[in-house]
Amino acid sequence: MIDSIAHKINSKTKPLGSLGRLEEVGTQICLLQKTLTPQLSQPHIIVFAADHGIAQSGVSAYPGEVTAQMVLNFLNGGAAINVFCRQHGIALTVVDAGVNHDFEAHSSLIDAKIARGTQSYLEQPAMTASQLAACFEKAEHLIETIHQQGSNIVGFGEMGIGNTSSASLLMSVLCSIPIEQCVGRGTGLTDQQLAHKVTVLKKALANHPKPANAQQALAAFGGFEIAQICAAMLAACKKQMLIMVDGFIATAAYLCAYTINPAIKSNALFCHQSNEQGHKLMLDYLKAVPILGLDMRLGEGTGCALAFPIIESAVKFINEMASFEGAGVTQKT
Amino acid sequence: MIDSIAHKINSKTKPLGSLGRLEEVGTQICLLQKTLTPQLSQPHIIVFAADHGIAQSGVSAYPGEVTAQMVLNFLNGGAAINVFCRQHGIALTVVDAGVNHDFEAHSSLIDAKIARGTQSYLEQPAMTASQLAACFEKAEHLIETIHQQGSNIVGFGEMGIGNTSSASLLMSVLCSIPIEQCVGRGTGLTDQQLAHKVTVLKKALANHPKPANAQQALAAFGGFEIAQICAAMLAACKKQMLIMVDGFIATAAYLCAYTINPAIKSNALFCHQSNEQGHKLMLDYLKAVPILGLDMRLGEGTGCALAFPIIESAVKFINEMASFEGAGVTQKT
Repeated sequence: MIDSIAHKINSKTKPLGSLGRLEEVGTQICLLQKTLTPQLSQPHIIVFAADHGIAQSGVSAYPGEVTAQMVLNFLNGGAAINVFCRQHGIALTVVDAGVNHDFEAHSSLIDAKIARGTQSYLEQPAMTASQLAACFEKAEHLIETIHQQGSNIVGFGEMGIGNTSSASLLMSVLCSIPIEQCVGRGTGLTDQQLAHKVTVLKKALANHPKPANAQQALAAFGGFEIAQICAAMLAACKKQMLIMVDGFIATAAYLCAYTINPAIKSNALFCHQSNEQGHKLMLDYLKAVPILGLDMRLGEGTGCALAFPIIESAVKFINEMASFEGAGVTQKT
Repeated sequence: MIDSIAHKINSKTKPLGSLGRLEEVGTQICLLQKTLTPQLSQPHIIVFAADHGIAQSGVSAYPGEVTAQMVLNFLNGGAAINVFCRQHGIALTVVDAGVNHDFEAHSSLIDAKIARGTQSYLEQPAMTASQLAACFEKAEHLIETIHQQGSNIVGFGEMGIGNTSSASLLMSVLCSIPIEQCVGRGTGLTDQQLAHKVTVLKKALANHPKPANAQQALAAFGGFEIAQICAAMLAACKKQMLIMVDGFIATAAYLCAYTINPAIKSNALFCHQSNEQGHKLMLDYLKAVPILGLDMRLGEGTGCALAFPIIESAVKFINEMASFEGAGVTQKT
């Protein structure tokens, strides 16, 4: 398979290897789809939102109520992810994975609420084992639906005030990297606030036994949205869908999924490198090469939406470019 | 102006600065267009093609006839730039700036042929002063037409076997960087061929007086396509159009234009960093930050086409995202 893909790409009217990363992305998609004529159908981005008990401890520049406010902004079409999904014809679904607010029904909103936010992991695990199991069940069901509707490429975004803290803790325990190197400014902390965040997260680590696996890490340091993204990624992998991986928090969810099933890497397209300081380290740990590097740190799946046209280009050049022979162009001497 | 742009961007529902490079690109476009509601209209990519006398001296991995063959491939829609322009609704025009072939008339082909290729600059200047003047005249006319048709953003691509050699020489003389650091593998030279290319280009430099300005450098080391791109960029600048700058060769043309009129930088969007070794150095010299870094080295304007949706995103978030106030989202504490 890999040989026939390489042959097809190398016969295109261009110097060998001159499309760089597009050739790698295109090859990956051909391999996953087991075809020389890859297709992207019904691209979909799902934004999971949830609140975090730890947000009470001053780890974010924004108050907790912003999570619910931003969900309403998503539903009204005014957030960055709405703009970029509209631009590229990407379907957008918003999931209430555990926001501290009761929403009215909306055609773009899925109710997968586990609770009105996690517990603060300063005192206890963020979620119970049965709450974690519910995260997996609900996310699997959602992917099942989207897959049945014909989507073969899905990206994951998140919204949850305080969730860079969860992501940093997951990164620290699963990659065995000291927490200081995993913590960043999130939505915009000052130096002093950043130092406070590190102190809080060190306490959190000290209050928990070292998790034995990704599931225990998720239950301890949680984030209902992170757990549901992890579960949705694993479900998308089972369905042989392409998975667009966004920034720091979504990559932490991917890290959990990868720890549970390393085969998921064949499905994963790392869309961008976030400006959040831990992201580069996490991508290095995963030996992942991001498609874009635009110094963004917004989340919501925005990196996925912006990388989508590049991924589409990788598919289109394989399907649409002429070959040297077909175009009557002389090959390299 | 800059303050009201910053205010508009900072009132959007996202952490301050979290859209990274998109915010910089959006700001640049607002400043150029003198508006808080920027627009991209009728995006256009023009591929200039020409042959090079130096191609007889073994500086390229491909024979000279490939220039004409690739022009036909562009006209038939089979090249990479065709695929990416179709994907993004970008108009594509091909210019015969000096190909060693007589083409039949075609609706997408502009005849701006100066001669059937430049002279080899090993013995004499690549072009005469009147040929250079003709390059400027023809390119200005073309930009005039495209601007009149309503385009306000134009990208430039090139095709010309041997033209990385011209670009390297222009870079060396205009940036005062030793030629060895300006020469790369182009379309795929081996180590031995690369060493030969350096030797040839050193001889070329030794056979010419140091050019006193960009015009003299262009006449000496030429490339009809490079001279026409330089002229077209200067004309687009006069019309206050956005200019998408592609890879190594197009950036060398930009370097000439920038040397003639440094104000052009306000118009320039550096679309990608090529894998051709000299490109990073040239971008550094120009203090230019590329939008994409996909390890490509194809030319044809492909970097412009791939960066276009990102540029479009920079415009769309400014026009379409809700403000904190409008969406009822609490600002940073």
